[in-house]
Amino acid sequence: MRVGIFGTGSVGRTLASKFAALGHEVMMGTRDVGALMARLDMDAMGNRPFPEWFGEQTDVEVGTFAEAAAHGEILFNCTAGSASVAAISHADDEALTGKILVDVANPLDFSKGYLRLTLCNDDSLGEEIQRAFPDIRVVKALNTVTAGVMVNPSLVPGSHDLFICGNDDAAKAEVTRVLKEWLGWETVIDVGDITAARGTEMLMPLWIRLMGAVGSPMFNWHVAREGGTG
Amino acid sequence: MRVGIFGTGSVGRTLASKFAALGHEVMMGTRDVGALMARLDMDAMGNRPFPEWFGEQTDVEVGTFAEAAAHGEILFNCTAGSASVAAISHADDEALTGKILVDVANPLDFSKGYLRLTLCNDDSLGEEIQRAFPDIRVVKALNTVTAGVMVNPSLVPGSHDLFICGNDDAAKAEVTRVLKEWLGWETVIDVGDITAARGTEMLMPLWIRLMGAVGSPMFNWHVAREGGTG
Repeated sequence: MRVGIFGTGSVGRTLASKFAALGHEVMMGTRDVGALMARLDMDAMGNRPFPEWFGEQTDVEVGTFAEAAAHGEILFNCTAGSASVAAISHADDEALTGKILVDVANPLDFSKGYLRLTLCNDDSLGEEIQRAFPDIRVVKALNTVTAGVMVNPSLVPGSHDLFICGNDDAAKAEVTRVLKEWLGWETVIDVGDITAARGTEMLMPLWIRLMGAVGSPMFNWHVAREGGTG
Repeated sequence: MRVGIFGTGSVGRTLASKFAALGHEVMMGTRDVGALMARLDMDAMGNRPFPEWFGEQTDVEVGTFAEAAAHGEILFNCTAGSASVAAISHADDEALTGKILVDVANPLDFSKGYLRLTLCNDDSLGEEIQRAFPDIRVVKALNTVTAGVMVNPSLVPGSHDLFICGNDDAAKAEVTRVLKEWLGWETVIDVGDITAARGTEMLMPLWIRLMGAVGSPMFNWHVAREGGTG
């Protein structure tokens, strides 16, 4: 399948490598391809220079946001939450209409010295994107685990779960298939319409505390319940 | 041990019954004892009239907020989040100083037709209480599970966890002991100082979605990780 990925940070890179390794045709989108390919420094999140990573990939393309959107039969938003709507708005309407966008991002803000959300409680990034682009079928998923776990759930031992939400049941079913068949997720819990993105994004303040308590980002949520494995 | 419980709703009742059954001396506190004991109707949350429940208890006392605070060697806040500071402020300073208050409440607001929080992201109920009563040792705990599970974790199958936070390590150690020895919790994860209450309270919007997905409130979070049971 042709996959378009908005964003070239660690999440985008991790998903792109995995999808390419599975034989999918992946294009990553960025604002300015020339500027990205000229980078020699680490990005704001401490990722190594994009060209260095890109040079090791054999089956990943890079293009503008508009080109990646046009390329993908399914789209993934892996930009910073604060930049997501602006990034997606570079795409042509006909490149977006009817497509599934898996929103992997969180509206994180570290400007106050701790992890907070720029949208929460009465709104969410998933909703913001769905409102801004009503012709996209937004499915919130994968935003509750670190990138390495997204593409290799067995890095975390035992049973653990992904949460999915969105307004379009067929889109959620297709994303659930992708998560299970491509990435190996066993349990994907549908928590409702896109307003449930508030709930999954609001896991982040505890997520970062747990990273400290666990001593690693290699953990995940499991909903212990009757009939739930483990 | 003498236990003081702020609040007479379902959470307070559940904890009071359990602690009394374990042989502890329990006093529940309320604003107006006469009014509470005269109630013949269900409360706002649909709980049966307090006197009906109370009549079945043999070892639970009821008093004012001030009396319950003075009675308890350890205190539990089981009031509505919006009423918690006002309730605790009925207690005399000397009845509070140095005591542990386990804050079980969440700052829930249903006035907009969905579950939202009155405090979140940059603040929490746990922090609000700690700020208002700096001489109390506030420990946030138990607010992430339904009342029945609080006192009987084995109602949920498999491994699952409680989160605890607060500014006083000795208080957290004592509450962890109470959670394990009195209530049977196996895993209590210390997620940091009282500002981590933002994280545990912010689980609520997903919690209520999961109640819908699971079909019951009888579930709990488990942090799957290396070395974590299950």
